[in-house]
Amino acid sequence: MNHAKSPVRVAVLGCGIVGSEVIDLLLTQRQDLAARVGAELELVGVAVKEIAEAVLPKGLDPALLSENAIELASQADVVVELMGGIEPARSAILAATAAGASVVSANKALLAQDGPALYEAASQAGVDLYYEAAVAGAIPILRPMGESLAGDSITRVLGIVNGTTNYVLDRMTREDLPFDQVLKQAQQLGYAEADPTADIEGYDAAAKAAILASLAFHSRVSLDDVYREGITAITPADIQAAAATGHVIKLLAIVERVSDGQGGDLGVVARVHPALVDQSHPLASVHGAFNAVYVEAEAAGELMFYGRGAGGRPTASAVVGDIVTAARHKAGGGRGPGESTYLGLDNLDVGQAVTRYQIRLEVIDQPGVLAQVAAAVAAAGVSIEAVRQTARVRPTSDTAGVGLGGAEGAGLDELCEEQTARVRPTSDTAGVGLGGAEGAGLDELCEEQTARPQAGGPNHTADLTVVTHRAAERALRTTVQALGELPVVAAVEGVIRVEGE
Amino acid sequence: MNHAKSPVRVAVLGCGIVGSEVIDLLLTQRQDLAARVGAELELVGVAVKEIAEAVLPKGLDPALLSENAIELASQADVVVELMGGIEPARSAILAATAAGASVVSANKALLAQDGPALYEAASQAGVDLYYEAAVAGAIPILRPMGESLAGDSITRVLGIVNGTTNYVLDRMTREDLPFDQVLKQAQQLGYAEADPTADIEGYDAAAKAAILASLAFHSRVSLDDVYREGITAITPADIQAAAATGHVIKLLAIVERVSDGQGGDLGVVARVHPALVDQSHPLASVHGAFNAVYVEAEAAGELMFYGRGAGGRPTASAVVGDIVTAARHKAGGGRGPGESTYLGLDNLDVGQAVTRYQIRLEVIDQPGVLAQVAAAVAAAGVSIEAVRQTARVRPTSDTAGVGLGGAEGAGLDELCEEQTARVRPTSDTAGVGLGGAEGAGLDELCEEQTARPQAGGPNHTADLTVVTHRAAERALRTTVQALGELPVVAAVEGVIRVEGE
Repeated sequence: MNHAKSPVRVAVLGCGIVGSEVIDLLLTQRQDLAARVGAELELVGVAVKEIAEAVLPKGLDPALLSENAIELASQADVVVELMGGIEPARSAILAATAAGASVVSANKALLAQDGPALYEAASQAGVDLYYEAAVAGAIPILRPMGESLAGDSITRVLGIVNGTTNYVLDRMTREDLPFDQVLKQAQQLGYAEADPTADIEGYDAAAKAAILASLAFHSRVSLDDVYREGITAITPADIQAAAATGHVIKLLAIVERVSDGQGGDLGVVARVHPALVDQSHPLASVHGAFNAVYVEAEAAGELMFYGRGAGGRPTASAVVGDIVTAARHKAGGGRGPGESTYLGLDNLDVGQAVTRYQIRLEVIDQPGVLAQVAAAVAAAGVSIEAVRQTARVRPTSDTAGVGLGGAEGAGLDELCEEQTARVRPTSDTAGVGLGGAEGAGLDELCEEQTARPQAGGPNHTADLTVVTHRAAERALRTTVQALGELPVVAAVEGVIRVEGE
Repeated sequence: MNHAKSPVRVAVLGCGIVGSEVIDLLLTQRQDLAARVGAELELVGVAVKEIAEAVLPKGLDPALLSENAIELASQADVVVELMGGIEPARSAILAATAAGASVVSANKALLAQDGPALYEAASQAGVDLYYEAAVAGAIPILRPMGESLAGDSITRVLGIVNGTTNYVLDRMTREDLPFDQVLKQAQQLGYAEADPTADIEGYDAAAKAAILASLAFHSRVSLDDVYREGITAITPADIQAAAATGHVIKLLAIVERVSDGQGGDLGVVARVHPALVDQSHPLASVHGAFNAVYVEAEAAGELMFYGRGAGGRPTASAVVGDIVTAARHKAGGGRGPGESTYLGLDNLDVGQAVTRYQIRLEVIDQPGVLAQVAAAVAAAGVSIEAVRQTARVRPTSDTAGVGLGGAEGAGLDELCEEQTARVRPTSDTAGVGLGGAEGAGLDELCEEQTARPQAGGPNHTADLTVVTHRAAERALRTTVQALGELPVVAAVEGVIRVEGE
C-alpha cells in the first residue's frame, strides 16, 4: 500500500508483557494500521533494560533494540512508554515531548502522580499525550469521557477498575470461600501477583481513580487526594450479610462532584473502598477479572463501559489505538484535547463524601437495645433506612465457632431471622434522624419475639444490621463510634458503604 | 471567560425533541463548552419548518429562527442536522460541506442510505462528519469503535440498538404477557410510536446495523445489505421455551466478518432478528429501553457499551459531544478520521451467516420420532447440540387451548418434562452431523419413557426442541424445511437463532 506521506516513526520503550504485544500488533497489522493512519508506522527502536536478557517478539529485528530509553525517546514521532514505574519513565516522556514527539503511555502510577507536569510538557511542545490503557485496560473509557461526553457534565463515576480484586470478591461470593484461600488460588492462576499489595490494598485502583477524576471533572486530582481502603478485611460473613439484603460486594473507585447545596460545586471526592452494590445494578453483573466503568452524566444519564481490564493483548489494543490517533495527527495535522482543568474543583476530604453505611453490630440480647441504637444514630443526625435483627446461633459451651446452639438459639432463629423492619421518617419530619418513637415501636416488636424463648442473660447476643440513609461520611463515622461505645453493643462487626443508588 | 480565537458559528437544523435539547445545552453550558473547545460556540441560527408553529427552547432569541435550512447550512462553521428523513436533510448537509462547514448529524436513516456520498462530500471539503447520536443514542460507540479500537480488528458486533423492542421483549419476559398487550402499553407510556412499524419490524435497528458494519469493518454496508426480521411473531411460548434452556430473547443487530476458512475474509454479514441470548451474557442484563453494544475484537476481546439509546436529553449529549470535537478542529486545526473503506469487504447474503438454530417442533407421539428427526437434521449436514422432548398437555376434547389434559398427558409430563439429552459427535467423527446410531440411542431412551403411559395414537403429540451446533444459515434453513416435511412432524412451531457464543 502506498502512502504519499512520510512514515511516522514509532519508538517503544519497554518490552514486557504489554510492550511485546504492542510490537507484535505493529508488525503484523502493518498494512491495516497504515490505512487507518494515512501513513506507514515505522518501528524505529525498542528500549529494553538489558539487550542480552531481552526476549524478542517474533519478527522484531534485534538491531532495533536499545538500552538507552531517553536517547531513543528523542528520535521518534510517537514514543510509546511501557516501562512502568516513575523513573526513567518520567524522564523518557519529558525527553520525547522536548524533542517534539507525541507520547502514548499506559503508566497509571506515573500519570496519577505527575500527570500535570507531563501534560504541561506536552502542551508546551504542542504534542499529544494519550494513556487510554492506563485505566481499565482494553476498555475505551478515557476517550469517551474526554471527547464523546465533552458536551455533557459528568457527576459521578463508579468503576470496577482492578481485575484482581474483582476476581477475588467474585469467587468469595460465588463459592463462599474466605479471602486468603481465594487469593492463594488467584496467585496460582495468575490473577494475582506474588506480592498482591498494590491490588488488594487498593493502590492500583486509587491511581486510576485519580486519572478518572481529573478527566471527568476538569480538575487536578492526584493519587494523594484519593481515599483508599482495600479488600483484605472482607469476610464471608460480610458477603453473606450483603446477599441477605440483595447486594454484592465490589471494590469500587468512586469519583464524584459534591454539591454545595446551592447549585454549585463544593468540590471533588475520590475514593476507593469495598462497597455494597444492589444485585440489579449493572456493576453487580461484572464477574471474574473483568472491569467496568459506570458513568453518570447530567444529560446522557447512566452509561457503562465493560471489558477486559488487564492482559498483554487487550491492553495492547488500547495502546495501539492511541498510537494510531497520535500518528494520524503527526501525519495529517491537529491535536487531541490536552489537559482540561478549567473547572479547578477543590479536592475534598472523604469525610465530605455523601454515602450510606451498612453497620453490622453484635448486641446484647435484651429489651430496649434497638431504642438505644436508634437514639445513638439519630443523635449523630443520621437517618435510618432499615434495621434487621438476626438472632445469633451460638455454641452453648465455650467451644467457639463449632456446631449449632441449643434450644434457645434455634428458637430465636426461627422467630427473628429474616425479619427486616423498614423505618422511615414520618411525613412531616422527612429527612430527620430516626427519633425515639418509631425506634421504640420497632424495638417492642422485636423484644416480644426475642424475649419469648427466655434467652436473655449477658452471654446471649443478637446480630443487628443498620442501614442508614445517605449522609456525610463524617456523620456516619461519628455514628459508628457512638454505637461502638454503647454498653448494649458487644462489637461493631462490620461497616461497609452502600453505593450505586 | 476570554478566548483568543474567534467564535465557532453553529447552526442547528431542526428544533424537535433532540434539537431543542441541543440548543438548551449550547445556551446553558456556554462557558463550559467554550473551555472545552478553546473558543466560544456562537449559535447563529435555528432552522424550523414553520416559524409560526415553532416551540422555542427557553432563552433562544426568536430572531435566530429561519425556515431556510439550506441557506442557513452555508452560513456556519458547524452545521447540526437534526431534521431527520432523507430530504431536505441530505441537501442541507451537502450545502454545509460545500460551504466548508463540518457536519454533526443524528440521522441514521440518511447515513445508512447515503453515508458514502455524504462522507465523500465531507472528505473533498476537508471537513468533519460526525454522527455519534445516530446509533445507540447517548452511548459513545462510534468514536470508540473508529478511534479507540483503531489498532485492533473487530470481528463481530452484537447490539441491542432499539429501545422500543427491548422494552417490549423485556416486559413480555418479566410479566409473561403477549406482544400486542405490551406494545399497547408501551405506546401509552411513550416507549413506542403510534405507528411502531420502524421499531418492531426492525427497520430502525437495520439502519444502525449498516452504520456499525461500515465502521467496524472499513467497508461499505448500506441498509439494503442488512437482513431484517422484527419481533411481531415472538410469543410468550417462545419466551418460555427460551427460559427453559437458560436464555432470553433479544432483538439483536449483528454484524460480523465471515471467514473464508483459510485465514481470510469471505465478507460481511449484517442482520437484525430476534435471538436467544444466554442469561449469563452481558446483553441479557440489558433491561427496559436501555441499549447496549457488545463488540468482539481480536486483541481487546469482549467489550460492552451500555446506556440510554433514545430520549431528547441523552441524545443531545452525544450531539453536543460531536459539536465540541468538530468545533475544536475548526478552532485549532485537524480533522477526525473520515470514512475508512480500505478493507472493502463484500456484503454477503444472510445464508452465509454462521449461527445456531433452536427449532421447536410439534411431533406425533409415537416410537421412532426422534430417530427420524435426527436423521433429517444430519442429512442437511447439520450437527445437533441438544434435544429436549416435552410431553404436551393437551385438551382431551376438541376445545383447543383450554384446560389441562387427561391422565395420559399428565403422566407423560411427569416422565419426560425437563429431560434434555446432549448429543455430541463421537470423538472420531467430531463435527459431523448426528447420524443414526447416537440418535437411535437417544430415541430409545425417550421412547421407553413416553411409551410407558401407553399414550400413543395420532391425536397425541409432544413438543420436541432441537438446538443445533453452529452451521451456515442456508443449511439450517434446509434443515427446517426438511423437518417440516417429515410425516411425524405435526408443525414447526418456532425457529429462533441462538447468538452470543
